[in-house]
Amino acid sequence: MTPILHDTLLTQLKWRYATKKFDPAKKIAIAVWSALEEALVLTPTSYGLQPLKFLVLTDPALRAQLVPISWGQTQPVDCSHFVIFAARAQNTEADVDRYISRMAEVRGVTSEALAGFKNVLVGDVVNGPRGKVALEWAARQAYIALGNFMTAAALVGVDTCPMEGFDPAKYDEVLGLPAQGFHAVVACAAGYRAVDDKYAGMPKVRFAASELIDRR
Amino acid sequence: MTPILHDTLLTQLKWRYATKKFDPAKKIAIAVWSALEEALVLTPTSYGLQPLKFLVLTDPALRAQLVPISWGQTQPVDCSHFVIFAARAQNTEADVDRYISRMAEVRGVTSEALAGFKNVLVGDVVNGPRGKVALEWAARQAYIALGNFMTAAALVGVDTCPMEGFDPAKYDEVLGLPAQGFHAVVACAAGYRAVDDKYAGMPKVRFAASELIDRR
Repeated sequence: MTPILHDTLLTQLKWRYATKKFDPAKKIAIAVWSALEEALVLTPTSYGLQPLKFLVLTDPALRAQLVPISWGQTQPVDCSHFVIFAARAQNTEADVDRYISRMAEVRGVTSEALAGFKNVLVGDVVNGPRGKVALEWAARQAYIALGNFMTAAALVGVDTCPMEGFDPAKYDEVLGLPAQGFHAVVACAAGYRAVDDKYAGMPKVRFAASELIDRR
Repeated sequence: MTPILHDTLLTQLKWRYATKKFDPAKKIAIAVWSALEEALVLTPTSYGLQPLKFLVLTDPALRAQLVPISWGQTQPVDCSHFVIFAARAQNTEADVDRYISRMAEVRGVTSEALAGFKNVLVGDVVNGPRGKVALEWAARQAYIALGNFMTAAALVGVDTCPMEGFDPAKYDEVLGLPAQGFHAVVACAAGYRAVDDKYAGMPKVRFAASELIDRR
């Protein structure tokens, strides 16, 4: 029932920090990166709809274009793999159908048997409350993926740096996302800390549990 | 460098699912729950500001009030610990000062030495771009915490069910959150699956990696 010790979990969550300086020479091994990509795919999302794209950038020239539109931060070029979390701007009935088809395929049932569930989805994410705030709803799902990704990475000893500090409209333009119906909402650099990243040794700043946790 | 095997990570992420039926008799052991609360506290957030509250509900009477305002779902009462993720509605200069004081305390420097950083924060999260969308910005941070929490739980063998399906305004009212300047944005039940939860055995539905991951 306890695949890893809770002490191991906490050791790794304390080990992680927002890496400011990556070692550009250290690349994440293929098997480890494949697992982290699979972790992204496995991210739970609202209704399971996955209104997301994960852009994984390794090309140096493309990554170099991001530095000036990332408040000058160099993590996009210095890290091993740079991930951009993109959220879908609108949900259509076709998006729901694609999900229903996938569910039918995976679970070995007919799409017709899922018609009731489809109607619930369309009535919420297309024509209902979540449809009215589709991009923001999808952005929140992207942040679940970000949280999952950073924790997963820490557990396999990979450093990360989450980044909201960039110009989303310019990221969109460089990456051609709007034409696909998506927008960049957050990013995360992954790789290995440089031995001289002074931030690695600084005590972690978090409010006391008593300020954040309210037990009732 | 690899505290856990990436196979262990994936085994646990595949083991987890949105638990529909918890075993009400199975409670999370104190040491394990303490670690999960600490994982919540350790959640990375934008600038480290933690504009969040985590409400941890164990009281049966309070939890029973949530069922009718949670689309009738019974996870709030059947799980071991029910967590509500609340986001701060507005950021004030006092919030920033409280964070700067905490940083000074943890890192053994003076608040004066952090004046430049404080100005950056105030210029963004209070008076600048993030200040204009403060609640939504905070809500996104809450979703990082949700992603971190579900993955952390899976790794220590605890089942979870993320829940957007509730009436946020009614949760706010029952929990008295607006008076504290917070709003409920998402919830997560934690505990152990009932042996007869039919959803536990269903194949997990995710789109193929080729549809979600865009390598460049």
